[in-house]
Amino acid sequence: MVQAQEPSGSDGLSGRPRAARSPPAEEDEAAKTEELGRRAVELARHYHGKIETVPKVPVRSLADFSVWYTPGIARVSLEIARRPEAAFDLTGRWNTIAIVTDGSRVLGLGDIGPQAALPVMEGKALLFKFLGGVDAIPIPVQVGSADELISTVMRLAPAFGGINLEDIASPKCFEVLEELQKKLPIPIWHDDQLGTAAATVAGLLNALKVTDRDIRSVRTVLLGAGAANLVTARLLIALGHDPHRLSVLDHHGILEGEREDMDALALHNRWKYRLALQTNGGGRQGGPAEALREADVLLAASTPDPRTIHPDWIRSMRPGPIVFALANPTPEIWPAQAREAGAAVVATGRGDFPNQVNNSLIFPGVFRGVLDARARNIPDEIVIAAATELARQTARRGITAEHILPTMEEIEVFPEIAAAVASRCVELGIARRTRTRDEFLEVARRRMARTHELASALRAAGLIDPMPDDDPAPKEKS
Amino acid sequence: MVQAQEPSGSDGLSGRPRAARSPPAEEDEAAKTEELGRRAVELARHYHGKIETVPKVPVRSLADFSVWYTPGIARVSLEIARRPEAAFDLTGRWNTIAIVTDGSRVLGLGDIGPQAALPVMEGKALLFKFLGGVDAIPIPVQVGSADELISTVMRLAPAFGGINLEDIASPKCFEVLEELQKKLPIPIWHDDQLGTAAATVAGLLNALKVTDRDIRSVRTVLLGAGAANLVTARLLIALGHDPHRLSVLDHHGILEGEREDMDALALHNRWKYRLALQTNGGGRQGGPAEALREADVLLAASTPDPRTIHPDWIRSMRPGPIVFALANPTPEIWPAQAREAGAAVVATGRGDFPNQVNNSLIFPGVFRGVLDARARNIPDEIVIAAATELARQTARRGITAEHILPTMEEIEVFPEIAAAVASRCVELGIARRTRTRDEFLEVARRRMARTHELASALRAAGLIDPMPDDDPAPKEKS
Repeated sequence: MVQAQEPSGSDGLSGRPRAARSPPAEEDEAAKTEELGRRAVELARHYHGKIETVPKVPVRSLADFSVWYTPGIARVSLEIARRPEAAFDLTGRWNTIAIVTDGSRVLGLGDIGPQAALPVMEGKALLFKFLGGVDAIPIPVQVGSADELISTVMRLAPAFGGINLEDIASPKCFEVLEELQKKLPIPIWHDDQLGTAAATVAGLLNALKVTDRDIRSVRTVLLGAGAANLVTARLLIALGHDPHRLSVLDHHGILEGEREDMDALALHNRWKYRLALQTNGGGRQGGPAEALREADVLLAASTPDPRTIHPDWIRSMRPGPIVFALANPTPEIWPAQAREAGAAVVATGRGDFPNQVNNSLIFPGVFRGVLDARARNIPDEIVIAAATELARQTARRGITAEHILPTMEEIEVFPEIAAAVASRCVELGIARRTRTRDEFLEVARRRMARTHELASALRAAGLIDPMPDDDPAPKEKS
Repeated sequence: MVQAQEPSGSDGLSGRPRAARSPPAEEDEAAKTEELGRRAVELARHYHGKIETVPKVPVRSLADFSVWYTPGIARVSLEIARRPEAAFDLTGRWNTIAIVTDGSRVLGLGDIGPQAALPVMEGKALLFKFLGGVDAIPIPVQVGSADELISTVMRLAPAFGGINLEDIASPKCFEVLEELQKKLPIPIWHDDQLGTAAATVAGLLNALKVTDRDIRSVRTVLLGAGAANLVTARLLIALGHDPHRLSVLDHHGILEGEREDMDALALHNRWKYRLALQTNGGGRQGGPAEALREADVLLAASTPDPRTIHPDWIRSMRPGPIVFALANPTPEIWPAQAREAGAAVVATGRGDFPNQVNNSLIFPGVFRGVLDARARNIPDEIVIAAATELARQTARRGITAEHILPTMEEIEVFPEIAAAVASRCVELGIARRTRTRDEFLEVARRRMARTHELASALRAAGLIDPMPDDDPAPKEKS
């Protein structure tokens, strides 16, 4: 039986995709990862952090602090005391988010704690600024339970226009996200759930188009019942996928109502429990082999081992199936093998194969959009809006079996996603600020461009050290 | 009886001092404050926040994220998991602090809550970067008790190399500071206690010199028993001031062992209780009139009303007394009146009179110093090192009755304070990093200069909007 778990939501951003190639030798893979790790430590020691704060206002002389600080600022505080929503206008709250983790599931490293998670959160903050123009503050927190994590985020909320949860173990992450979404009047996002699921759905929508399938009639198997796949299942159903034609597998096999552990699930993982009752029409039992017979789609987010999916299972699917093998850093089957077994479309979590399913395609646009609309929350409708816009933007450029999603270089899609998200917030009545789609698009473009202007100005002034010489990191993957 | 309370620790930074002038008309004062407030709101609405994040590392292409983020970053996390202290080398923790408030005592506005405190914390973050080169993150928190505030800061600690507490009501602030100093292995600072007290002590040391007095023989009255004065009393005693020659007054009068409320104090404010037992030798009873007879020094940090201190009380002091009237925005007596009544040295909290006692003279150097030494905490020895260095640096430039402290323009003193603080951390064995004083000085100068380079580069690139035209804020006070 397969050892199923969700992949890291933190997909690699390692350059542009290439034509299909033969499976890399495992030693090469390991050597490359080892080298990148060595280099990352060396650079971390050189730069001592990845972001810093800078003034956004002019300070011509210290006299200006009479308006930036006391005594003038007291009046700004009074305005906010009178009308708390004024904080979105009078402070940086509108564009500032916290990246919060308890360090309980960091990348593929497991429960290494908040201190060790800090460099990852810093990297994410850098991504947020580069791709979304968002001021993101890394805040790994030392907490002992889901309740403590929830209460901590609630206490922090006044400073932030949104919260990005990151690298939190499943199923704790479901409870934390649900509770915070209920309790706080700002967008709460868990990238490993929503970001990965939205990117998966976007890719799947285009894969269905390429293979001329209809979401309402396909049969889909989700291998792995972690953070991402449980949300993917929910989104697919919301998009019209027949729940009876969905099967979800965890490491005990197909989730279904007759399973012996249903009572335990009801108690400890009600998200899995619900899906077990709702999906798997016809009551299939067993493992992936049983689930995959005659299926159209396999969405695997499970074990980073290329032997996880057996080619014979793919052969047992309907002709020209869709196979997403999303485990990181190593897909559950090498793309070439999946093709050989008949897959018409193959996607992975990696940037060095075609069709990278990458949550970084989603979160920058989503946050730009909800922040620009000053949204009160992020319901599934928003996640779906982001996913369908991503699919649509890719389709506009022409989709093929090897291009169901844009690459990270096609950053023009980000402001489009932002505009779609912000407009949807307005439609749903959860926006504090109303603009037309074109206005949102214009604002998003400007804010996303600003980071590059900031970086250029600082580089030109010698305030960002050039990369040290002995640089074996690939400048350009080719 | 005088209504005693501590002044805001957030002293104005409103330009350079001028020669003594006659007391301003109260309407003029009010009109000026009103105008600065109006302008502050207008500018807050224009700039939407005062700081933003920028990359500190080069990103030549998205391929570089393979070392700034996955997969390379996993190795950095593993290094920190193995040795948590490595976070000070491999992340921005070494230079990043949180500015935490519960909003329970914001400026002179009282308990307006965390949301309304955010603009003040942003202003402080701007000051931290400008004056100290420190990356400070404003984090107002929504908490209901001192315990919740303590637990929240403890949970946040992994991301930060230090914590600056701000605008927390007294006596809660004492408990919070003490507990956090005990529990966390990073410097914890409450500016309204330590910063204001250190600046007061520095000014007093030079005022004693100017009037040829010895700290071991003077008699001192502290009017107001809030955050700053309770610490000032503690520091004076540590510096050799005879506790019996100290009297501290709250709004019930002189703190002394016979007072009826001693049981209540023992229960609710053990800091006042301790001072009541320790000070006021000879057992004076009554109010300021009784306390001040034959005293050398009056340190008032009480009610912002120029009628708080009666000139006759000053006349009853020893010849040529020292009078600090530190309430903000209005001193307890106008300097000219205090002089007229015989005061040899007068100080206030304001920048438009000579001798501004300003915590902004202290915190930038202290934080630069403890961060550069990667200190584990900030004991009183460090506060005293900062105060005595500030006094010494002023004395080196020549002190007079009108220049016992530097103005905010004399920023050359900040790196000197940083170096003194960092060296003292090494001597006390609380530094994680050992350097010579000259090395610390060089590093502090470089890091403090960097902010000005950052601001120049961003201004030159048009990334900081120039101040909007209709600017009635004083460009230069003269």
